[in-house]
Amino acid sequence: MYAVIFKAEINKLDSRYSEVASQMRELATNKYGCTEFISVTEGAQEIAISYWQDQEQIKHWKQDSEHLVAQELGRSIWYKSYKVQILKILREYSTNA
Amino acid sequence: MYAVIFKAEINKLDSRYSEVASQMRELATNKYGCTEFISVTEGAQEIAISYWQDQEQIKHWKQDSEHLVAQELGRSIWYKSYKVQILKILREYSTNA
Repeated sequence: MYAVIFKAEINKLDSRYSEVASQMRELATNKYGCTEFISVTEGAQEIAISYWQDQEQIKHWKQDSEHLVAQELGRSIWYKSYKVQILKILREYSTNA
Repeated sequence: MYAVIFKAEINKLDSRYSEVASQMRELATNKYGCTEFISVTEGAQEIAISYWQDQEQIKHWKQDSEHLVAQELGRSIWYKSYKVQILKILREYSTNA
């Protein structure tokens, strides 16, 4: 199992942002096999993490034509800067208090 | 390089929380070699990501006596539930808009 961490410094989130973000989430899940997607924003800082079965899915998702448009909107309007990390999950545990 | 993702559903953050969180951050960095720590909270959802050079550091950090107390406070007071994932960074890229 793999994860993609997206960390961004927000510039300006316009009305189109939430619409596109929702579309991208749906596309990643329905077409490319993303199994989970979470996003948390505090002030100008956004962290989003998506989970995938294999790295091929991540590569295809990165090259999706609609996603490329969203990436360009991200770079030119919504974000001052962002960083993407591709990771392999080694182990995990959870606890309920 | 390794990352630890901590995802929590917040129960109740009392006055002790920010003090302990700050101490733990300092301890992880100064004693155990954590290279970066970021934390973002939105509503009841918290995501924290720490970065490490090797897995031994992460294991030692998990077993630190002060950290064990903090973990217990987390389970019993601050969080309803949480999940921890240990990951290896395969590649990364960043961009400035």
